[in-house]
Amino acid sequence: MSFESTRHVDWGDCDAAGIVFYPNYFRWMDSVFHEMTRSLGFDQNSLPGFGIHATPLIDVGAQFHAPVSHGNELVVTACITRLGRSGFTVRYRFSTTDQRVAEGHENRVCITSDDQGRLSKIDIPDGIRALLERHYEG
Amino acid sequence: MSFESTRHVDWGDCDAAGIVFYPNYFRWMDSVFHEMTRSLGFDQNSLPGFGIHATPLIDVGAQFHAPVSHGNELVVTACITRLGRSGFTVRYRFSTTDQRVAEGHENRVCITSDDQGRLSKIDIPDGIRALLERHYEG
Amino acid sequence: MSFESTRHVDWGDCDAAGIVFYPNYFRWMDSVFHEMTRSLGFDQNSLPGFGIHATPLIDVGAQFHAPVSHGNELVVTACITRLGRSGFTVRYRFSTTDQRVAEGHENRVCITSDDQGRLSKIDIPDGIRALLERHYEG
Amino acid sequence: MSFESTRHVDWGDCDAAGIVFYPNYFRWMDSVFHEMTRSLGFDQNSLPGFGIHATPLIDVGAQFHAPVSHGNELVVTACITRLGRSGFTVRYRFSTTDQRVAEGHENRVCITSDDQGRLSKIDIPDGIRALLERHYEG
Repeated sequence: MSFESTRHVDWGDCDAAGIVFYPNYFRWMDSVFHEMTRSLGFDQNSLPGFGIHATPLIDVGAQFHAPVSHGNELVVTACITRLGRSGFTVRYRFSTTDQRVAEGHENRVCITSDDQGRLSKIDIPDGIRALLERHYEG
Repeated sequence: MSFESTRHVDWGDCDAAGIVFYPNYFRWMDSVFHEMTRSLGFDQNSLPGFGIHATPLIDVGAQFHAPVSHGNELVVTACITRLGRSGFTVRYRFSTTDQRVAEGHENRVCITSDDQGRLSKIDIPDGIRALLERHYEG
Repeated sequence: MSFESTRHVDWGDCDAAGIVFYPNYFRWMDSVFHEMTRSLGFDQNSLPGFGIHATPLIDVGAQFHAPVSHGNELVVTACITRLGRSGFTVRYRFSTTDQRVAEGHENRVCITSDDQGRLSKIDIPDGIRALLERHYEG
Repeated sequence: MSFESTRHVDWGDCDAAGIVFYPNYFRWMDSVFHEMTRSLGFDQNSLPGFGIHATPLIDVGAQFHAPVSHGNELVVTACITRLGRSGFTVRYRFSTTDQRVAEGHENRVCITSDDQGRLSKIDIPDGIRALLERHYEG
């Protein structure tokens, strides 16, 4: 059920210790989230057509199991572990061919914007819920 | 007891929605961690003098309360909320003059490196423990 | 006549060789450009009030004189070296207390946007020209 | 003769104007350089085996022809346009299926490191010269 992609660890992704500078894991999570939604048939530009404005982050986190250096290929799997009323959680796992590298999550929430640009929570649109369910692993 | 610093939200820190691209909060946390340790009297280069190799991340997380756009100044406060045997937790709070913006944490652990470059956990050196206690808020 | 600011070289700004990963110099140039314009009284949000849409980049470049590592403070000076009809050039110099580190430039052009979102060059508005002249070093 | 690769324009690569934040083009150039050298049979870790320490940047530049937004795929071609005594130039071209997007270059130089860590220029090793010639377009 997971969505799978790969990310290459670049020279510039590593810090002076020669291993991934950790904020890059979140850059990759966000990148894989958008790649997953595009593969499902929606992206940030098409959200208004579903009746929502955006899917901002409420809470994120990551655990790091093993350091990785440049030249490595990371396999990233993403799945939906929570489909709430207005929010949902995406879990990401990073690994090389040898070992688990890291794990993380993003809690996102659907929001709408009124005439004055004020943002408020809104239920996950049925169309998006149905798409996200394809990668649901409860 | 907190260490305090500021970070400016740059044009390039924001995404296509005009608000901070969230991995930058972790970049700022890491940056403030190193600024805090330098202000206490140690940095990555002086760790071997304390008997440790590095203080890598085990677990990190953040909660986002309000979106922030370019041109804003963020006040960042950092304090130590846990001083364990080999690991410690740093908590970060981001705010503008108006409001709370975000909150996050880093769990770091002291490691040593043997002749073959194998890494293992080691107790927080007394010298570093005494310095971190200055910003301890249990 | 130059605008002057500082940027700290963070742990995460350095690559696996322990020196600044060079795209960060451009991140700092862009950051200092916006800081300079704010200090002059305009920013990206106020450009429409001057009759233009944006000041995108046409051409950029940099020369690197000496490697710099984390923990260093860079003094950055910026000045306008060309004020053309619709375009202008900003020159940046980076140094530590010890030595010249890098030098770079950004060629920017004023553009306007029509009803269909089509972009075209437009003369530098007089109001902005007068402000940029304060940092002009021909 | 060119080396060719692709880079995806991520949500987080774009600025508040919704187009690529330009320092990312340099991040991609550096990334494609390392991908090209790996495909030729060497990387930063194997440089000492060729008798050099590193290939740092002396001078870089880029011209931007058209703005690109997230969701786009960039084709990047790289070729060697100069093979000097100790230095060489790599030219990069970015395009979408529709149009030319940007062009840039990196001037790199081979350096060696003595016992005290002092760096100095050294001739391009014959082994590396032969490999770079495969992508030479004079």
